[in-house]
Amino acid sequence: MRLSMEKVLAGIRPVDRAWRLKARERLNDLAIPRNSLGYLLDLAEQLAAIKESLNPSVARKMVVTMAGDHGVVAEGVSAFPQEVTRQMVSNFVAGGAAINVLAEMAGAGVTVVDMGVAADLSALAEKQKILSYKIAYGTQNIVKGPAMTRKQAVQALEAGIEIADLFVTNGIEMLGTGDMGIGNTTPSSAILAVFSGRPPRQVTGRGTGISDSAFDNKVTVIEKAIALNKPDPRDALDVLSKVGGFEISGIAGLILGAAYHRIPVVIDGLISSAGALAAKNLAPSAVDYMIAAHQSVEPGHQYMLEALGLKPILNLDLRLGEGTGAALAMHIVETSSRVISKMLTFADAGVTGPQNQERMAHA
Amino acid sequence: MRLSMEKVLAGIRPVDRAWRLKARERLNDLAIPRNSLGYLLDLAEQLAAIKESLNPSVARKMVVTMAGDHGVVAEGVSAFPQEVTRQMVSNFVAGGAAINVLAEMAGAGVTVVDMGVAADLSALAEKQKILSYKIAYGTQNIVKGPAMTRKQAVQALEAGIEIADLFVTNGIEMLGTGDMGIGNTTPSSAILAVFSGRPPRQVTGRGTGISDSAFDNKVTVIEKAIALNKPDPRDALDVLSKVGGFEISGIAGLILGAAYHRIPVVIDGLISSAGALAAKNLAPSAVDYMIAAHQSVEPGHQYMLEALGLKPILNLDLRLGEGTGAALAMHIVETSSRVISKMLTFADAGVTGPQNQERMAHA
Repeated sequence: MRLSMEKVLAGIRPVDRAWRLKARERLNDLAIPRNSLGYLLDLAEQLAAIKESLNPSVARKMVVTMAGDHGVVAEGVSAFPQEVTRQMVSNFVAGGAAINVLAEMAGAGVTVVDMGVAADLSALAEKQKILSYKIAYGTQNIVKGPAMTRKQAVQALEAGIEIADLFVTNGIEMLGTGDMGIGNTTPSSAILAVFSGRPPRQVTGRGTGISDSAFDNKVTVIEKAIALNKPDPRDALDVLSKVGGFEISGIAGLILGAAYHRIPVVIDGLISSAGALAAKNLAPSAVDYMIAAHQSVEPGHQYMLEALGLKPILNLDLRLGEGTGAALAMHIVETSSRVISKMLTFADAGVTGPQNQERMAHA
Repeated sequence: MRLSMEKVLAGIRPVDRAWRLKARERLNDLAIPRNSLGYLLDLAEQLAAIKESLNPSVARKMVVTMAGDHGVVAEGVSAFPQEVTRQMVSNFVAGGAAINVLAEMAGAGVTVVDMGVAADLSALAEKQKILSYKIAYGTQNIVKGPAMTRKQAVQALEAGIEIADLFVTNGIEMLGTGDMGIGNTTPSSAILAVFSGRPPRQVTGRGTGISDSAFDNKVTVIEKAIALNKPDPRDALDVLSKVGGFEISGIAGLILGAAYHRIPVVIDGLISSAGALAAKNLAPSAVDYMIAAHQSVEPGHQYMLEALGLKPILNLDLRLGEGTGAALAMHIVETSSRVISKMLTFADAGVTGPQNQERMAHA
């Protein structure tokens, strides 16, 4: 292990406010009505501040799709059987899944990681089709005890850090998070309920599409898991170990690794945002490096984005996961990087500036 | 002229409902929870129905940025002087404008058209840097009379048709609309006020960013122009000629040409949507071929989208025009085309389907 969790947490710094101002100055000089590119300008400012450059390249992009299984599926919380996690990993490797298609379109790579799938994927790992950081064959059932040990939570988190480190070392300029794990909206909503103090019913959704009675059961399962395990909201590792998942801890680590290395990380939907909440809890400045890809249909996601203080780029009624929202949003993020690096200013372009302009409009 | 307006209007057909159903059947079989790719699936269905194919390619893309000037700028409705229209055309040709950067990122071409800029652009046209369909050196001032003659409105519209025809003949599979014209939010809001019957104050915005007093003046100008010219909301050519613009008529024609040739056309913001409203008025089935790129900050735009019955892909607080929203959205549209053509079904991928799934959830 090149980087311990402690070293990474101690090394995460907020982005430099002076660079934000420098970037905004440049953006205000572009030959467009002030602020008329809206959120693209905010993203450009963030990228410039992260990279400390007015030419913040994010062209080399990787979506990391972390897979893990969940003991809690025994409680009937998902519309799909557990074997689908393994089957979808095979689909990712075959290139026929949504994340393959969306990442290719965005010009991003996809790396699938076995964080804890309840099946033997060693053949795929040996052929280097996936990365293996398998902690166990799925978590334990959270209505019967903690999902994992604290040591396993740290191990999963440090796997995410190591993966970020690997990609940054190999020239990746922007990471995206993704997940695959039948049942994983249940721990994600549980994590949110713990961190936010909101009642599970308010922050729980239908995941892959369960019936009314299955939804009621899912809420009860989350309530039970929290009552039994009593995760401490001030201690993210306690929350991750008691009601989390291997892929969720891995995502938290990936995000922390990106922040440590000062590259932007695009957060996908509900499951990725649960990881982001844990990352923020461990290192508040990590949010400076996070970009929220989209607003999921899952009702809990808006509370996660609020807690993270992030504004989603897209709102397309997505609720798939895999990193699909992150892949789609990467195109917009990369576009914003080119807005600041390639567009001409009023002076450069020989365009007359505004007269009688309302400086405060949309400021 | 290969295609008259009459021929095109008579030739626009609604998309085939049977193809929509066929597309949705395929999308429902993809190895994802049903509807979990949200609006991407709706777009994929629309593309498949437009192209009558489950492999609806839209890879060859062109944004057409139509430029024109407006006599009404004499009334002080814009924060920028009229010469900026010409200067921005030069910036487009130089490749340093937002539309150049955004279209390149989307893999789309950009074609700039002089529909009626108040400057001699013949040198650029001769060097084939822009297309010239110049109707006049800007429209007339709409507070003093009609913007143009009915004949000019038809001429501008047929120019748009001819451009669509030209690109379709040359293999373009998806068009995007764009505009450049200092002062052109004023005719756009006027067109909306006429078609919708809404008061100008409700549908008028700050355009490139004018002060409170300039905004009040802009509303008064629109009220005066409508009172003086009395455009007939049942007659789109009357509306276009009395309170329109050359680039707006050209955009309406481009949209009609796309619908006639059965290719999708991505509508940019306020000005493009004003053209789309006119196109819908002339040929209601043309909306089947329209895709709304984004929700503009301009307050009138939401009423336009409602009138068109279109749902915007993006909501990024854009208010620039040029076709920038269309270029950004094209990536999402193209992604949706690949979702239907490249993703594997449950059966193809060997993935177990849902159990106990709520079929109505998000249906």
